[in-house]
Formats: sequence, structure tokens, C-alpha cells
Amino acid sequence: MSSCIGPPPAAPTAVRPREDREQAERIALSAATRHGAHLRTEDVHAWLAERRRAHVFQVDRVPFEELDAWRFERGTGNLVHRSGRFFAVEGMHVVEHDGPYGDGPRRDWQQPVIIQSEVGILGILGKEIDGVLHFLMQAKMEPGNINLLQLSPTVQATRSNYTRAHGGTDVKLVDYFVRPDRDRVIADVLQSEQGAWFLRKSNRNMVVETADDIPALDDFRWLTLGQIAELLHHDDLVNMNARTVLSCLPYRDTTPGAALSDVQLLSWFTGERSRHDVRVRRVPLASVRGWKQGADAIEHEEGRHFRVVAVSVKAGNREVAGWTQPLIEPVGLGIVAFLVHDIGGVPHVLVHARAEGGFLDTVELAPTVQCAPGNHAHLPPADRPPFLDAVLSAPRSRIRYQAVHSEEGGRFLHARSRYLAVDADGTRAALDPPPGYAWVTPGQLRALTRHGHYLNVEARTLLACINAMAAGPGGGAA
Amino acid sequence: MSSCIGPPPAAPTAVRPREDREQAERIALSAATRHGAHLRTEDVHAWLAERRRAHVFQVDRVPFEELDAWRFERGTGNLVHRSGRFFAVEGMHVVEHDGPYGDGPRRDWQQPVIIQSEVGILGILGKEIDGVLHFLMQAKMEPGNINLLQLSPTVQATRSNYTRAHGGTDVKLVDYFVRPDRDRVIADVLQSEQGAWFLRKSNRNMVVETADDIPALDDFRWLTLGQIAELLHHDDLVNMNARTVLSCLPYRDTTPGAALSDVQLLSWFTGERSRHDVRVRRVPLASVRGWKQGADAIEHEEGRHFRVVAVSVKAGNREVAGWTQPLIEPVGLGIVAFLVHDIGGVPHVLVHARAEGGFLDTVELAPTVQCAPGNHAHLPPADRPPFLDAVLSAPRSRIRYQAVHSEEGGRFLHARSRYLAVDADGTRAALDPPPGYAWVTPGQLRALTRHGHYLNVEARTLLACINAMAAGPGGGAA
Repeated sequence: MSSCIGPPPAAPTAVRPREDREQAERIALSAATRHGAHLRTEDVHAWLAERRRAHVFQVDRVPFEELDAWRFERGTGNLVHRSGRFFAVEGMHVVEHDGPYGDGPRRDWQQPVIIQSEVGILGILGKEIDGVLHFLMQAKMEPGNINLLQLSPTVQATRSNYTRAHGGTDVKLVDYFVRPDRDRVIADVLQSEQGAWFLRKSNRNMVVETADDIPALDDFRWLTLGQIAELLHHDDLVNMNARTVLSCLPYRDTTPGAALSDVQLLSWFTGERSRHDVRVRRVPLASVRGWKQGADAIEHEEGRHFRVVAVSVKAGNREVAGWTQPLIEPVGLGIVAFLVHDIGGVPHVLVHARAEGGFLDTVELAPTVQCAPGNHAHLPPADRPPFLDAVLSAPRSRIRYQAVHSEEGGRFLHARSRYLAVDADGTRAALDPPPGYAWVTPGQLRALTRHGHYLNVEARTLLACINAMAAGPGGGAA
Repeated sequence: MSSCIGPPPAAPTAVRPREDREQAERIALSAATRHGAHLRTEDVHAWLAERRRAHVFQVDRVPFEELDAWRFERGTGNLVHRSGRFFAVEGMHVVEHDGPYGDGPRRDWQQPVIIQSEVGILGILGKEIDGVLHFLMQAKMEPGNINLLQLSPTVQATRSNYTRAHGGTDVKLVDYFVRPDRDRVIADVLQSEQGAWFLRKSNRNMVVETADDIPALDDFRWLTLGQIAELLHHDDLVNMNARTVLSCLPYRDTTPGAALSDVQLLSWFTGERSRHDVRVRRVPLASVRGWKQGADAIEHEEGRHFRVVAVSVKAGNREVAGWTQPLIEPVGLGIVAFLVHDIGGVPHVLVHARAEGGFLDTVELAPTVQCAPGNHAHLPPADRPPFLDAVLSAPRSRIRYQAVHSEEGGRFLHARSRYLAVDADGTRAALDPPPGYAWVTPGQLRALTRHGHYLNVEARTLLACINAMAAGPGGGAA
């Protein structure tokens, strides 16, 4: 049993410090190093373009009936793989009793949702090169990416992947994460994925260091955090899995404090989690209210939210040469934004304790704004998401960060959002956030990413971007 | 919406330190203070005996048909309250795929389980008296307690309790926790309850300070942590809710380190949580395999684990004068123990990453041993729980702590366990713990109780006891 999780912690005879302060210094040095030892940042684009050309990779939409190993299960209508592995599309029924005592305004809806109980590994391998931590990033094709190939972690593997020998190159690298060297783990935490599209999905976010010689492989390059920070300012380049793993790195916090102490922040969060009463029940996909099934898509009756679709994939560099699969295709570009504001000279961001049906536990900390504006266009302004208009109408001078990033291309088709950090100066928000919102520092969010299920995946992406602002070309919010 | 959770964090203009180091000193002072300002520790027993006499309180077992507001729901056989509130007894079906990749030894069982989705509040009010923090403890009757009345938190309230005016005295005190003063919160965290008996139950564990004059009430007394530590050495005196709240206090850690750094500990825990694949499904109580229903009890076919029973309660000092309700009655006295061992001069305890069907997420950290020995008596020694025999056969000289404590008397009938801390010197365990076990310091466990769902409720009780060893009469492990 122990072979998969590293040796048990045997026979210790001495203690070590609980915190490795040197680690934070090494992270800081890597973040400050904008010239990598192996590849110039400006050459990353050429390398990615070259890898894109090197692989035959074609994605076509197909009707459901052309899915070959997938079928709609008799009775439930759930969309399942014939092996019972990978994932399934089923339905969920969410009833949310909000308000002071669970008896306030009520939401009640049904929707398709991805069921994927297995915990996958998202792992980035680190190595000190010329005295600076570099990270092994992969040029990886995913069928749902608008540009197919993006910069991804060293390893992204479902349990189905890494328990079976597919013969892919990254299968060997997965051993660094399946059997991590206990003395070289930099970060290792289970984090949630999109609660609007997945039911209780977690992935294991890992950064592990090695001193081994790693063979040079065409699809892999070593980059510093400073280089990755610069790349995070480009659209559709650093994939979601890379962003969430990067957000879990133990950056140091050099600020003198925060508007709320850590105990106050945790207490506020506990209050929010207690206040929300979200009950979720799995229901057969065939019975999901408000959605309709066609030959090519399952979609919302008013065309909102997302569609379930199917694609056929041909690829030369994957473990298998071709396959078909379902994907979730969101409707329209998302907007994901933190309002940022200096309090007492320390940058803060406005987090939202957001309930999503698929979360393991009621709420997680989300960005100030997280929505697809198209889903709310039919509503009167007062019913639209708070701060959406403030973000959309912000002049260029108040935008501290922006880039369009893609969500996970293995499950989502062309799922893209504009991620922003927008200066709140001049908006009322800075003065008096409504219930469910709080001003916290990036340092506090970084401390929370040591633990699972505090920050949702969109907040983790924005945290990685904010880390990149600080470390990257322009300096910035934190 | 904000009225129940305190004012929103409005208009901050300055930062404060993230950690309040002074708080840990105040906790340490209270723990070192063995003479309370209001009541001598040796007089606590007389006060409790007096309160026991002051209240008419009688508990009788009754057949299910004498339950007045409860019924077995048609079709499912679930045991429910006619209001739909409080809790219900349903069934759960647990399938656990353990082993390296979720494909190892397999467990599959069904059992009755308590469903209680509402988050309750367990709150202890603190106040500085003569320069020392005191905590307001309540002499509270609960029908399942073998001695009926035990020392409990200031407030233990289900949402159903505190959203309705029952007119009870502690209803006024609940306001300190429903609307906590943000500047006076000492601890506030959602923690799990017994995963073997509850499905995904969390309670909000809170310690909040006040400077208000609190009227003297017959059922309430102010005690220091040093006094409570001494009381924790008595059987059936400090109730489970008090113990779990006390375990969340921010004690300082003065040790130089630990066998595993915090990152290593978190990585090991993440590995354990990822390794276990536990899937739980609610099933109708009437269909639960391996259990049989009689007129007085629902019990396991081999008489193991627990019984679901019913009681009639008459009380003079409760919000309502009398009621009937179901309770869970475990079979036999439990054994809950930490092996303790000094590593590099620092006390450590051997934690077990334990899967329980009712946990929100696969495993939590549990004591080294946690079982009712009677449930395993029919098994050959090799199949009995690891370390059980080592604990049961430990000579008196190796027992650093022991007391019998009761589990929650509002849900469990005569559910008692012997809690122990046993010196591991001389056992093989100290040298080479098996997979799923790790040596950690009490300081590390205290840091983890700031967050939910790391320590199970039995481990939190033992942590409170270990804190009491350090602070209490004999000195001790940590």
C-alpha cells in the first residue's frame, strides 16, 4: 500500500523546523529571475509554435451518435464511458437556502454536471539550475483549447492515466508525484475545480523538486517563475492546471499586516460557510429540468450557461492516437476580476464567499466578479452580479492586470475568461463591501492555498496572475 | 442578511498584524492559572451535583411506537421528525476502494446514519477576570449522558434552537456567537462530528470574548483553562462539545520543531486523502443490509456497532418540558488512544489517517487507536485494529493520561470511551509506523484545528486532553 505514496515516515530521531524559511527565499529568487538558464522567454512562443506544427492534432465537433466509447445510459440518460472510467455527465439538483438563518432568498435549479470522482495529479517538477529554481513546463495539446496547445504542468494525470501504461513520455515523470521524495515536496494540496461544472471534483496540486538529470524532451522546457510570470500576461498561453499549481507555491509575505487578522478572516469565512445552506442531489441527466437534448448538444432552454457537446480528436503525440469524447462548451466569454485597493499602504483584493453547486462544502473564496455577462444580460441592472458593471466600465488606467485565459481543455471546449485586476479607487465598493465580500491581502490568500477548498479555481488563477504582477515586468499590486 | 454574521468588514483604513501573538500568551496564562476567580475547582463537583438535584430530569427507554413527534416514513422507513427539522435516521451505503490506486482491499457496508444538515453552534464565551481569561461553562443536562448532567460550552445550539425563541436562558447568550464581535473572536471553525454515526455533519466551534457584564446564572460558571484541564482528568465530566471547542484554542507552540515539517505533514495527509477512494450513497433505512428492526431497537444482525433506540425525556430546565427522541446507543465502551513518543526531545503522537463513511472528504486525522474492542473480538489477532493490543496491555507506568469521556448526549445514549495517551517506548510502533500513520507534534495538531476537517472529533478530544496534561496537575506530554 505504501508504494504509491512514498515511504511511510519511519524511524525519525530528530526534529526539523516546522517552516522552511529558505524555501520562500528560493521562490522569491526564481520569481525575480527573468532570464532562464535554458530558454529565453521571447523564444517560448517560437517553441510552442514549433511543437504545434510537430503534432498532427485535429478536433472536430461530432453528433453524439458518433461518440464511439461513450453512450447515453438506458434509463438515466447519463452520458458515460463504456469502461466506467474517465468521467460521466449526469444531472444535479441544487437547492440553496440563503439568508441569515437559511430561510432567506432561495435558489433552486437543475443542470448537467461532470462527475469525476477520481483525484488526478497536477504536478510541476522543480530543479535548481545555476542556483535558481526552474520549473519543467510542458507544451501540451488539449482538445478544448482554442489554440490547442498551451503551457501546462510537467504532469497532468487522471488516476486512469497513471495507473495504466499508455507509453506516453510524461508517464515516467509522473513517478515524481505518485511517489514524491518527502524531503523535496514544495507544495501538495487537494484543490477544487469549477463548482459550476464539476460535482465535488478535486485535483492534487503538487510542486516537487528533484536533483536528477532529466532527459531533454521536445515537449518540455525549464522556466523560472519570473519567465512564467511574463507569459501569464499573454492570452491563452499558460493553461488552467499550470495556473492553479502555481497559485499553491509558498511565496513569502513581506507586508506588515492586513485589514483583517488571519483569525478574523477565518471567522468571517466560517460565518459565510455556516450561513449558506446548499443541498445538492444527483439526478438522472435525462430528467434535468430546463435543459433540452438535441443530436449535437444538450443545452439550456434559453441558450444560457453552457452546452454539452461531443468532439472527435486526432492526435499524433498522445498516449492513444485518436478518440472521441464529450466536452462542456460555455456560452460566451467569462469575466473574472478582483477589485484591488490599497489599505494602509498594503494591496488588498475583494474576495467573494461564493456558493457553487459542485463545491464540497457550500462556499469557497472567489474573485469579486465571476460570471459570463451574457447569462445576465436579460436581467435589470439591479439584479446583475455585484461589481460587474464597475469592472466592465473601468477605464484602462485602473486595470492593473488583464489577460484571457482558458479553462481546462480536457473537459471544456473554448471555455475562456478575461481575468482582470481592477483598481477600486473611486468606486463605492472600496468603502463599504456588502455582506459576502471581504478585503484580504494576496499574502493571506497564498497562506490559504496551503489548504484545500478555501480558494476556488478562478480565484487561484487570479492569485497566480497577481503573483505574476509582483514578480513580472510591470511590478504591481502585491 | 448581514445581521446574523456580524457587520460586514467595512471601510478599513489601516492594517493590523495577521497574527495576534498576545492571544497565545493570554491562553497560556489561563492554562497556567489553576485557581479561578469565581469558583474553586474542587467545588465544581458540588455545584454540578447541586444543579443535578435542582432539575427534575428523567430519561426512559421507550419502544419506537411511543415516539410522539417522530415516525418511520412510509416507503423509505427513514426515522424522521414530523416538522422535517432536527435530524433524521436514514441509511448509508459505503464502498471503500483502498490501496495504491483505489484498487486494493475493498470494504463495502451499509448502516443506519444520522442526517443533520444544519450547522449548529458550539460556543464558549471568554472574559478577562482579574487579568486572566475565564470561560463560561454550563451545567447542562443531555438525555444520553450516563450521569445526565455534564460541563458543556456556554452555548450549544442547533439552527432550529437559535432561530426560534424557546425562552431558555442560554438563548440570550447565543447572540455572542450568532453575531460575533469581529475584534473579539478567539477561534471560529467548522469541524466534523463522528463519521461513523453522522453523514457529513459539521458544527461551528467558537470561542468569543466579551467585556460585558454577564448576569450570574445558576447553570453557568466562569473557569480558567487550568481549572478545566484539571476537570478533564475526571470521568464523564467535560462533555464532547466542550472538548472539541477547547481543542480549537490557539495555544502557542514553544517546541523547536517536529519529525515532519508542516509541508511534509500536509503532503503526507494529501497523499492519504488522495489514496483513499470512499464513495457514500444514502439509502432508505428500511433497506439497510445487515441490520434488523425490532419494536425497541434497530440493531446489527451480529449485535455489533450500535443500536438505534428511543427515549422519553422529562426535564424541568429545558426550553420545553418533555419530549421523546431517537438516540444512537453504541455497543460497549470505546478505546481511543494516542501512542506518544519523544523524538529529538519533543513529544509526538502517532496519528492515523482514518476513513469514515460520514466524513465530508475520505479521511481525517484520528487517534492511533479508535474502536470498540467488542466489535473486533471475533477476529483473529492479526485482523484486529493496529496497536489496540499494545494500548490495552500497556502497564500503568506507560499511561500518561486516561479518563472516560462521553460523546454527545443529545444524539448518543451512554456512548463512552476510555481516552488514553500511552507511552510507545518499547513498542515497535515507535520505530516504524505502518502506512497511514505518522508521528506529529501536538503543536502541529493545534495549528491544524484552525481549519476544518483535518482532525476528527475523537482526535480533537484527545488533543484537548493533551493540552490539559501540559497545563494540568501532572505536567506531561506537551
